[in-house]
Amino acid sequence: MGKVQVGEAKGKLGILTVGVGAVATTFMAGTLLTRKGQGVPVGSITQLATMRLGKREENRFPKIKDAVPLADLNDVVFGGWDIFEEDAYEAAKHADVLTRDDLDKVKDEMAAIKPMRAVFDQDFVKRLHGTWVKSAPTKWELMEQVKQDIENFKKENNCDRIVVIWCGSTEVFTPLGEVHKTLAALEKGLKENHKDIAPSNVYAYAAVSMGIPYINGAPNLTVDIPAMWELAAKTQTPICGKDFKTGQTMLKTVLSPMFKTRMLGLNGWFSTNILGNRDGEVLDDPGSFKTKEESKLSVIDNILQPELYPELYGNVYHKVRINYYPPRNDDKEGWDNIDLFGWLGYKMQMKVDFLCKDSILAAPLCLDLVLFTDLAKRAGMSGIQDWLSFYFKSPMHEPSKVAEHDLFIQYVKLKNTLRQMIGEETVDFID
Amino acid sequence: MGKVQVGEAKGKLGILTVGVGAVATTFMAGTLLTRKGQGVPVGSITQLATMRLGKREENRFPKIKDAVPLADLNDVVFGGWDIFEEDAYEAAKHADVLTRDDLDKVKDEMAAIKPMRAVFDQDFVKRLHGTWVKSAPTKWELMEQVKQDIENFKKENNCDRIVVIWCGSTEVFTPLGEVHKTLAALEKGLKENHKDIAPSNVYAYAAVSMGIPYINGAPNLTVDIPAMWELAAKTQTPICGKDFKTGQTMLKTVLSPMFKTRMLGLNGWFSTNILGNRDGEVLDDPGSFKTKEESKLSVIDNILQPELYPELYGNVYHKVRINYYPPRNDDKEGWDNIDLFGWLGYKMQMKVDFLCKDSILAAPLCLDLVLFTDLAKRAGMSGIQDWLSFYFKSPMHEPSKVAEHDLFIQYVKLKNTLRQMIGEETVDFID
Amino acid sequence: MGKVQVGEAKGKLGILTVGVGAVATTFMAGTLLTRKGQGVPVGSITQLATMRLGKREENRFPKIKDAVPLADLNDVVFGGWDIFEEDAYEAAKHADVLTRDDLDKVKDEMAAIKPMRAVFDQDFVKRLHGTWVKSAPTKWELMEQVKQDIENFKKENNCDRIVVIWCGSTEVFTPLGEVHKTLAALEKGLKENHKDIAPSNVYAYAAVSMGIPYINGAPNLTVDIPAMWELAAKTQTPICGKDFKTGQTMLKTVLSPMFKTRMLGLNGWFSTNILGNRDGEVLDDPGSFKTKEESKLSVIDNILQPELYPELYGNVYHKVRINYYPPRNDDKEGWDNIDLFGWLGYKMQMKVDFLCKDSILAAPLCLDLVLFTDLAKRAGMSGIQDWLSFYFKSPMHEPSKVAEHDLFIQYVKLKNTLRQMIGEETVDFID
Amino acid sequence: MGKVQVGEAKGKLGILTVGVGAVATTFMAGTLLTRKGQGVPVGSITQLATMRLGKREENRFPKIKDAVPLADLNDVVFGGWDIFEEDAYEAAKHADVLTRDDLDKVKDEMAAIKPMRAVFDQDFVKRLHGTWVKSAPTKWELMEQVKQDIENFKKENNCDRIVVIWCGSTEVFTPLGEVHKTLAALEKGLKENHKDIAPSNVYAYAAVSMGIPYINGAPNLTVDIPAMWELAAKTQTPICGKDFKTGQTMLKTVLSPMFKTRMLGLNGWFSTNILGNRDGEVLDDPGSFKTKEESKLSVIDNILQPELYPELYGNVYHKVRINYYPPRNDDKEGWDNIDLFGWLGYKMQMKVDFLCKDSILAAPLCLDLVLFTDLAKRAGMSGIQDWLSFYFKSPMHEPSKVAEHDLFIQYVKLKNTLRQMIGEETVDFID
Repeated sequence: MGKVQVGEAKGKLGILTVGVGAVATTFMAGTLLTRKGQGVPVGSITQLATMRLGKREENRFPKIKDAVPLADLNDVVFGGWDIFEEDAYEAAKHADVLTRDDLDKVKDEMAAIKPMRAVFDQDFVKRLHGTWVKSAPTKWELMEQVKQDIENFKKENNCDRIVVIWCGSTEVFTPLGEVHKTLAALEKGLKENHKDIAPSNVYAYAAVSMGIPYINGAPNLTVDIPAMWELAAKTQTPICGKDFKTGQTMLKTVLSPMFKTRMLGLNGWFSTNILGNRDGEVLDDPGSFKTKEESKLSVIDNILQPELYPELYGNVYHKVRINYYPPRNDDKEGWDNIDLFGWLGYKMQMKVDFLCKDSILAAPLCLDLVLFTDLAKRAGMSGIQDWLSFYFKSPMHEPSKVAEHDLFIQYVKLKNTLRQMIGEETVDFID
Repeated sequence: MGKVQVGEAKGKLGILTVGVGAVATTFMAGTLLTRKGQGVPVGSITQLATMRLGKREENRFPKIKDAVPLADLNDVVFGGWDIFEEDAYEAAKHADVLTRDDLDKVKDEMAAIKPMRAVFDQDFVKRLHGTWVKSAPTKWELMEQVKQDIENFKKENNCDRIVVIWCGSTEVFTPLGEVHKTLAALEKGLKENHKDIAPSNVYAYAAVSMGIPYINGAPNLTVDIPAMWELAAKTQTPICGKDFKTGQTMLKTVLSPMFKTRMLGLNGWFSTNILGNRDGEVLDDPGSFKTKEESKLSVIDNILQPELYPELYGNVYHKVRINYYPPRNDDKEGWDNIDLFGWLGYKMQMKVDFLCKDSILAAPLCLDLVLFTDLAKRAGMSGIQDWLSFYFKSPMHEPSKVAEHDLFIQYVKLKNTLRQMIGEETVDFID
Repeated sequence: MGKVQVGEAKGKLGILTVGVGAVATTFMAGTLLTRKGQGVPVGSITQLATMRLGKREENRFPKIKDAVPLADLNDVVFGGWDIFEEDAYEAAKHADVLTRDDLDKVKDEMAAIKPMRAVFDQDFVKRLHGTWVKSAPTKWELMEQVKQDIENFKKENNCDRIVVIWCGSTEVFTPLGEVHKTLAALEKGLKENHKDIAPSNVYAYAAVSMGIPYINGAPNLTVDIPAMWELAAKTQTPICGKDFKTGQTMLKTVLSPMFKTRMLGLNGWFSTNILGNRDGEVLDDPGSFKTKEESKLSVIDNILQPELYPELYGNVYHKVRINYYPPRNDDKEGWDNIDLFGWLGYKMQMKVDFLCKDSILAAPLCLDLVLFTDLAKRAGMSGIQDWLSFYFKSPMHEPSKVAEHDLFIQYVKLKNTLRQMIGEETVDFID
Repeated sequence: MGKVQVGEAKGKLGILTVGVGAVATTFMAGTLLTRKGQGVPVGSITQLATMRLGKREENRFPKIKDAVPLADLNDVVFGGWDIFEEDAYEAAKHADVLTRDDLDKVKDEMAAIKPMRAVFDQDFVKRLHGTWVKSAPTKWELMEQVKQDIENFKKENNCDRIVVIWCGSTEVFTPLGEVHKTLAALEKGLKENHKDIAPSNVYAYAAVSMGIPYINGAPNLTVDIPAMWELAAKTQTPICGKDFKTGQTMLKTVLSPMFKTRMLGLNGWFSTNILGNRDGEVLDDPGSFKTKEESKLSVIDNILQPELYPELYGNVYHKVRINYYPPRNDDKEGWDNIDLFGWLGYKMQMKVDFLCKDSILAAPLCLDLVLFTDLAKRAGMSGIQDWLSFYFKSPMHEPSKVAEHDLFIQYVKLKNTLRQMIGEETVDFID
């Protein structure tokens, strides 16, 4: 890929979140505070990071947002769907992530965001009980309703472009089935209420069929199925996922490369998490946890390449646990124990305790992903956006390639892709 | 730099360690065990790592040692200097890093390594009291003795080439003075016993004046002074340092880039260490600790670029402590507490407890550095080897450039340099 | 209870362990090493602790073993049952707790300890597969075989007295049923192979019916059922249990009293464990874990008395996890996170990481319990020995009383009981 | 001591704090909130704890405050001295311990507390610079001013009784000198401005000479000198100290007894603290730290009795560090690493990370100590109150006795003393 023609970011950009809970409201409130000059969007590459252009000695380090034609925060409009009727202000208070002081500064804007009725199916999220939901005889008709929601939102808010981002709970694990393998099968399944079509599939189909980028923040397959690749190709739409890489997994994709570059061996890696928000409650259900576990476990193997280094990584015992623990609410804590070995096999240990905040870490990722997929759309880049792997626990990738999990390689890839897009040279650190 | 003509690694390579203590004996014993097939040199890039050549789809991943003409382990011979007379086997038992079982497998080879008398000066290492030391009226004459030692060793062991590596204790902090600024001043100082010329300067001058590569594993300035750059240029000799990057600092150069790439802010970073070996004892002296502290503190600032990101890194309170704690001996423990902040400034914390082994982590670095500087010498690369920054806490660099501390950038640079050396394309991760 | 007449500890004391695995062999080897003067029985109250007699100013602090007529280590003889045939030396090597160096010093004595065939029932320990087991048509006849084993052992080793101690795995959780409620029902059940009678019941019945003290180191009910209380009363036999209090629970019974005496409130307590020995493997089975969990959970509530302090302890979220993690073998690690609150409800946290060794902590408890129950037997103290609560996670107690979990109250009780036994005044710390 | 005649708690009790900073204002605000029913005084024994009276089966567990004639919170009045003029409301905001929400509920009462000018001497607190200080030619005259302050306060607030409590910073270490050894020498020294008489001595002399109880919350000697014992005896005044036992030391006096009762050995104990409040700033000065260090180090030895258990505790390497670390403000963090050993000397480790809040832990201690010393005064108990050792890092004790550091023994002693005071039997846990 060389320099590309990127369409201008003119007019309003509508951002529709599936789920108006802790993550979505933190994302919305923070974005609104930022554009009022009352908050700093810490964690956001699009808003804060710089990028080296040219040789080191040229000393050109513009902010990414000044070098690349991203949508302006003043042009974004928020909407979303949720299974509860409360508006974004109430939902944010309930989520208890941001202080009342911070929330009240954008109270009016937040209160004006009224969620649309959600597509909900108890079979896919056992621990939640929605009250603000759509009904229709078939999943296809539910999908039609979602499309109508989007149309209405676009018109009412006078939007030029829309992006849809999944900020909802993890759905029950569903293996790839025949119904997911072709667009025809998926469409048939929607019409016949196939049991393996999750609510997330309904939203995604609606968006992508309209040419609207879809971002998947949870480990559900959703757009990571051949049927959706087909649809994305057909409608020339960017898609990406899966599962925001925030706390413990972000750390793993940094520590694993450390051990690997230093050729230090591993015997075991034990990870446990405690969290008390809705996400924790949902993951207390074994079905939902299985989806998450798959997403979390593959990371290490992919980075360590045990097939290449059997002496070092051929026998890593890797275990991941998530524990619902209400005293903490959104204040997640991840504890990792790593059993490593060095020179001649001598044993060492590392323990990491990360006292983080789930939604605080996820919010800037939402912002970046929305702005970057909107950019991709305008740049004519459709299908799987693997240059956005940086943001995901289980990055989607072309079937012919393997996923890249190493956070630093992902970051180089992201920036070099941006450099290429604007016709600058890529960087290889040789000097 | 394009492909270069690299001289063949024929004949014996003599490795002379300054200091035959915990690090050096662990390095020696492990290398000997490895070449007998009785140990795996975990942690060594030269022995274990692979390197991608060409595009990803070419699927070429040779071991570095098969792609690059490094010296063979069967061709290395060990020697060294120490302030105690005991042979390397006794010294290794005393250091108590390796098990008796492991040591006894190479007992004869280790016992045959008798240290040469050391250049010692109580003013530079307050907590140790050497008994096996050289004496001479001037530092210049001490230097001449070291040159003679090297000549003798080379002849006795029939060596083709020599590398000298500092594995000794940290010397007292000495700021850059006039005597270090030109070769002429240094030579004059050696002859006039200038008080600011440390023992390490004596070894380094001897080696480099003979065209022998010198590697500095401690934070002492030694070869990181203009006088030595001048000498290295004159004799066409590779030099590198400073201070092996092993436990806590290695971790910092991985976690800092994580925060940085993710644009997460920092308020403070508190690091404490407990260790009970000779190194711990030496660092209990405030003068020696100051040298180390300088080496440890600069890392974070360099990576975070507070001048570019004042909102995120403009006010990081960074504190490093080292505590001599005999119950642990060589089993070092580093505890880090990091105060970070995310979206809108919300606070989070990370704590890392690294139960490591000092010499186990340092030994493979010694091996790699010796083999890579020997390679550099044969490739005609003289002066500061900044492509070896990967291995050092305070990487030496051209005065016109800044140091690169990010472990992953360092690693890309190292591998891309090797690729260039053998005429392969560099890698930029774009695909 | 005042001063009592204690029978003399003359002749040999036979110690029979049910299970000759990690705990039992560590206990045996350590006891043998101690009496050879080649090891210190660290952790053993009977061997090392002193006891104040009289007022503080009298300055009388004899060792407990000098003040109380305990059996001498030179008079103990070891035997046991196991589901594998290997002798105690082989079993100890397999368990990999003690170094070869230590084991080899008592190789002959250990190798001479050949386990007798075990009573085994796959239904009660799902993850193990015994090969060295008894067979008989009924549990009653198995019990008769155990009695015969004991008789034979006593005769062959010329023992004066015997104590039986359970050092085996945790059995599957079995709730208290009718068959456990009266001696008559239990005996009938043994004869009719009632499915709720576990192997441990068979051993216990055999021992107690012979007047032999039985100590229960696992959470299985075993002697904590009315039928066995009845039998113990009838045969005048001391019994005690349940579940050795070693790592994490020991800590809990110390930290909980700290919070309680300081009136600091608790919101939550999350405990996780990683261990890789046979015990860890057994506890990976949900049935066995349930038995353990019950034993571990009750501790906190009992100490904190939420009914008395609803504001402080009325809503403690307590979760305990055990994870089988092979890289660690017997080196257990317990990580605790405690969410506490102080003055006006302000929140604080405490985290404890205990890198312990399961069998090393359990072995001295075995020794003390054997010697103390033998003492109790000679002192005519039969039935539940609640003064030994100090050693157990779920201390047995009279049905009319509550268990005492506070480690320090337990310890005062133990020592004051000993004081009383020898006619000394109890201590109340008033001066 | 048997039952005593305790004077009634009639009229107002004036509480004067030396220092109106983080600890004092948190204490004041919390007490005021409690009596308004707007806060729970968590951590306070006098307000929340119950006490068993009689045998366990009698089931009598009254609250201590109902069984013992303590002053009522409605009868307390606050005042104090500080080196800054700001009122208690401003000082509390500045200290940033309590939320604005909490503070504003008692804004008027807090704002009405105007500190009196302090006795200040730069030599004793190097890092602070007072602006609201007394001046006089001699320390004796400063003392007279303090007495006058107390008289005025008592009259203005119509108090029946007064207690003075030191809540100020740690003073520079001053060894016991001749001037501290007799009352006569002290008085002479006050008049002659002896350099070893600290400001705290001036306050203490003033109070005790008036028969007013004095509580020492810092490690300064103050009332722990023979001169003050003499004065306390002469004026029949209770005195107590030294140094509130809050975070890490509280934990030590719980963990040490755990190791000790279990006869587990220790090789080393490393403790480090990070804190960022004024206390942390003061302790960054080596002189002040020395005072604190002495207070912190003795604890372990006293509990472990190495002279009785040389094999277990004869060689414990104990190190304590305090680090000023501004990012944390009042949120102190203590990290402990303990190297222990068990059966046969096998090594284990324990790490404790306590994320606590300095003033939140200290405030309830202030309340309890004030109420208990006022009780002691009315009960005619003068001199050193060693039954209050529970609250102090370095408990004062009669010269003929040793200090008791074990938190649980201290607690039994406290409660048994209260039981005696009201004519109830003491408890020995035998049944």
